[in-house]
Amino acid sequence: MSKGIKTKETILNTALQLTSKFGLESLSIGELAKSVGMSKSGLFGHFKSKEKLQIMVLDYAAENFTQQVIIPALKKPRGLPRLEAMMMNWKKWSGSYMTGGCPFLSSIVEYDDRPGNVRDHVKLLQETMIGSFERALRVSNEENQIRSNVDIKQAGYEIYANMIAYHIYSRLLGDKNSDKMFTANFDKIITSIKV
Amino acid sequence: MSKGIKTKETILNTALQLTSKFGLESLSIGELAKSVGMSKSGLFGHFKSKEKLQIMVLDYAAENFTQQVIIPALKKPRGLPRLEAMMMNWKKWSGSYMTGGCPFLSSIVEYDDRPGNVRDHVKLLQETMIGSFERALRVSNEENQIRSNVDIKQAGYEIYANMIAYHIYSRLLGDKNSDKMFTANFDKIITSIKV
Repeated sequence: MSKGIKTKETILNTALQLTSKFGLESLSIGELAKSVGMSKSGLFGHFKSKEKLQIMVLDYAAENFTQQVIIPALKKPRGLPRLEAMMMNWKKWSGSYMTGGCPFLSSIVEYDDRPGNVRDHVKLLQETMIGSFERALRVSNEENQIRSNVDIKQAGYEIYANMIAYHIYSRLLGDKNSDKMFTANFDKIITSIKV
Repeated sequence: MSKGIKTKETILNTALQLTSKFGLESLSIGELAKSVGMSKSGLFGHFKSKEKLQIMVLDYAAENFTQQVIIPALKKPRGLPRLEAMMMNWKKWSGSYMTGGCPFLSSIVEYDDRPGNVRDHVKLLQETMIGSFERALRVSNEENQIRSNVDIKQAGYEIYANMIAYHIYSRLLGDKNSDKMFTANFDKIITSIKV
């Protein structure tokens, strides 16, 4: 890695930690400069604007998600095995990745009522993730693993619902059965669509 | 209503609007005083501390939830009809109540990693709501509407998952099929536990 890329990586990593703790809207180039020990003008050189920084932080987290959750799942056989691997990878990743909280979930809540580029980007990233599940489901259909009349969007919605509920049950509620409930619900969704 | 109670109601209502737009952590007695046109010291007289104000705002929103979602459902026959009415009341209420965003969901995300009284209260209120669904499910069991071996906590988790997913699909993603997916998922959950 060149020095420039490594510096950017360090900055984005710190920015992501701050986002995880305080949310994306509170993220400022000034505060970030303090945290990484750089000048504000030096950071402006990297990111140009707060909005650009926010979007790059989201992309940085999304890239990590892709590397940890999606790509390892592609080693599994096409269709349902991949979808199942995505769920298991995600559960592991979501539990270990951020101490502060999920940067995506906090951005969803912060930006769902704030029109603009950041909101559009939060939306795009969620749609991309849900799209990965839907694609795995369409492949499952091609491979005759699920019934041909399955409503793919509905199944994607249910899979997504399970992830968000698990996140809240395990983190806020500290429910010791969260893992079991997540798995039971996922199995139930799959059983309901399987051939 | 006495003048004192009416003033408090006005203040809490404004505080809730601010929370819905900017989150509970950003809520300050100073900003709130500006918004309602009162002195900061006058507001301190009502709420004593920021933390107390935050907890009262949550309770104010929870009281509204109880009035609009739970109580009207009690007119329905015991068990599943009540649970179904709660879901329909909630969907109507959640869509019309707050322009900024759900004050509970934003508090969940803000406080899941911040130990203290506010977090404990957010947790208590979510557990209370989920407890209402679980109670309706236990009654459904007593009335022989659902199978005796149904895992009540699991069903409560799935019902909760559906609500959060609907909220995100309808608000952030603007998915025009959110209503249909919410209802289909709820029906599926009920079908899976019915006798």
